[in-house]
Amino acid sequence: MPLPPDASLSDAGEFGLIAELETLFPQGEHVLVGPGDDAAVLRIRNGHVVVSTDLMVEARHFRRDWASAEDVGHRAAAQNLSDINAMGGTAHSLTVGLAAPADLPAQWALDFARGFAEECALVGASVVGGDLTRADEIVIAVTVLGSCTQAPVLRSGAQPGDVLALHGRQGWAAGGLAVLGRGFRSPRVLVEAYRRPEPPYAAGRLAAEAGATAMIDISDGLLAEARHLAEESGVAIDVRRGAFAVPEPLQAVGAALGADPLQFILGGGDDHALLATFTSVADVPDGWQVVGEVAEGEGVTVDGGDYEGPTGWTHF
Amino acid sequence: MPLPPDASLSDAGEFGLIAELETLFPQGEHVLVGPGDDAAVLRIRNGHVVVSTDLMVEARHFRRDWASAEDVGHRAAAQNLSDINAMGGTAHSLTVGLAAPADLPAQWALDFARGFAEECALVGASVVGGDLTRADEIVIAVTVLGSCTQAPVLRSGAQPGDVLALHGRQGWAAGGLAVLGRGFRSPRVLVEAYRRPEPPYAAGRLAAEAGATAMIDISDGLLAEARHLAEESGVAIDVRRGAFAVPEPLQAVGAALGADPLQFILGGGDDHALLATFTSVADVPDGWQVVGEVAEGEGVTVDGGDYEGPTGWTHF
Repeated sequence: MPLPPDASLSDAGEFGLIAELETLFPQGEHVLVGPGDDAAVLRIRNGHVVVSTDLMVEARHFRRDWASAEDVGHRAAAQNLSDINAMGGTAHSLTVGLAAPADLPAQWALDFARGFAEECALVGASVVGGDLTRADEIVIAVTVLGSCTQAPVLRSGAQPGDVLALHGRQGWAAGGLAVLGRGFRSPRVLVEAYRRPEPPYAAGRLAAEAGATAMIDISDGLLAEARHLAEESGVAIDVRRGAFAVPEPLQAVGAALGADPLQFILGGGDDHALLATFTSVADVPDGWQVVGEVAEGEGVTVDGGDYEGPTGWTHF
Repeated sequence: MPLPPDASLSDAGEFGLIAELETLFPQGEHVLVGPGDDAAVLRIRNGHVVVSTDLMVEARHFRRDWASAEDVGHRAAAQNLSDINAMGGTAHSLTVGLAAPADLPAQWALDFARGFAEECALVGASVVGGDLTRADEIVIAVTVLGSCTQAPVLRSGAQPGDVLALHGRQGWAAGGLAVLGRGFRSPRVLVEAYRRPEPPYAAGRLAAEAGATAMIDISDGLLAEARHLAEESGVAIDVRRGAFAVPEPLQAVGAALGADPLQFILGGGDDHALLATFTSVADVPDGWQVVGEVAEGEGVTVDGGDYEGPTGWTHF
C-alpha cells in the first residue's frame, strides 16, 4: 500500500512504514532470518564477527538543508562500513535504528533507507534489522557486522621504523563542510564529497593482506586518528606536510576562505580514508601514499614539530 | 582519573568519559578485541549469530524522575537481552550508543553503564563496543548478539491446535507505569517491576528445547504480541481471561484507579515475559501457564470475542 506523498511518520504509522522500509532491504544468502522477528539470524562462516556501532544526530552530524535524505542514508551506512574496512574486513550485515519527530515526512525516512541500502549494496551487505521510534530530533543508530579473511588489523600494531600511509580522498569532505557553513554550494565536488563520502572499501582488506601493522579510518581528522594509532601502539608518529599534494578544489576553497588548505587535509574528517602503517615502503600497496614515519616515543608531530591548526572533532 | 562528582558530559569530555565507561564493562573469553578499536572482534562458535536492535528515548520510553540511571541501564539491556531470549537463544555481546545533552551529569552516564553492565552479567554477556555523542535529548541505542543451541524459534511457527502459553510476570510493569503516571510510588513492587523488569532469561532456551513452535517477548502488550504471532503464523489465537490469576498488587491498583486490572495483563508491556505456542499441553515446560489456543483463521480474540480495552503500544 503506497503512502500518500505528503504523509508524515505519524500518518504512516510505525508498522505501515516498517513494512515499506523492509521492501527496500534485499537479504543476502547468509541471512537465515531477516527483519520482522524478535531478532535476525545470520550464518557465520569464518568463526568470528567484527562489530562496530555509531550514532548520527541531526544538526550535529548532518543538516537536512545541506544534504538530502538519500545522502544522509549513504553517509550513515558509509561511516559504519568504513569501520569494518579499517579492520581489514568485509561488512555483511547491518542494523539501523531511526528515532525521529512524528511530523518528519515518511518520504524522508524512505529516501534515507534507499540511500542506506544503496551504500550497503556497494559491499554486498544486508540490512537485517532495525527499530523506529519517535524523538524530538533525528538520531540514527547503526551497528555493522563483518568478517575478516585474515587477522584483523588493530590500532595497536605500529612499530618504530614503520611507514605511515594514506589511501583515499582526504580533506575533501571538510572542504565541502566549510563551504556549506559559509552558505556556498561550490566547489560542487567538495560539497558532494561531504554529502556522500566514498570510502575505499576494497583497500582495507588488501592492506591487511599486504601486512599492514596498524590501521584506522579517518572519521575525526587525520592528525586526530594518527594520535589514536600512536597512543594505542605506544609509538611516535611524524607526518610530513610535503607528502600531500593539495588538490585544486581545496586550493580554491583555501583561497576563498583565507585558510591554509592543508588544514582540511590534516584536520578534516568524514572522508573515511584509511590511515595505516607498514613495515617498509616496499610493503605499501598500490594506491596508498606514504605520508609519515613511526618512531620510538609518543605523540604526533608534523615535520618534526607541533601542529597549531585544528586537529579533529570532539563530541562534547 | 576519577571525575569530579558534579561533572557534566561536556566537562568530562568524550574520550575521558569513554575511558571511565570501559572500566565498567568486563569482557568475556569470546571477545578477541573489545572496545577501543574501530570494531570489536568476537569468536563465534555455533556458526551463526542472532542479532537485534532497539532504541530508547527519554520522556517516551523512560523518565529520569521516575527511574534512576541504573534502572534505565537495567531496562535498556533487559529489553534487548529479551529479544534473544524470545528466539530461544543466549546473548553474548552488546553494543550501546548514548546520545545525550552536554549538561547531563557524567555520573548519570556512569550509573546508566553500571546498571547496563549488571543486567548483562545476569546472562554472561559482554558490552563490546559503543558510541557517545551529543544530542538535545537522551537516546539509547542497543544492539545485542547471541547464539542458539538449536534452531531459533520464530514468530511464524504456530499451528492450529497448538496451545498458547505465558512465562514470567505480566502486567506488573504496566501497573507500575499507571501508578507513576498518577503521581504515586506504590504499590512499590509494581513500580520496581516497571523500573527493572525481570525477563525470564532461562526460559527461552528451555522452551526451544521443549519444542516451542513459535515464541515472542511481550514488550508492547500481550494481545498486541499475540497478534504478531497470529499474523506471522497465519493462524487465529484465542486468549482465555480465566487463565490469568490477577495478583494482589494489580487488584489494588485496579481498585484505586477504577480500572479492570486485567487490562494491565492483556494490554501492558515492558515486563518482557515470553509468549509461546506448543503442540500440546504435555509439551509445555514447568513454569509456563497455558493462556489460550491456536486455531485456523486469523486475528486475536479474548474468550472468543473482540476485546475492547487498550491492547498495546504504537510508536507513532
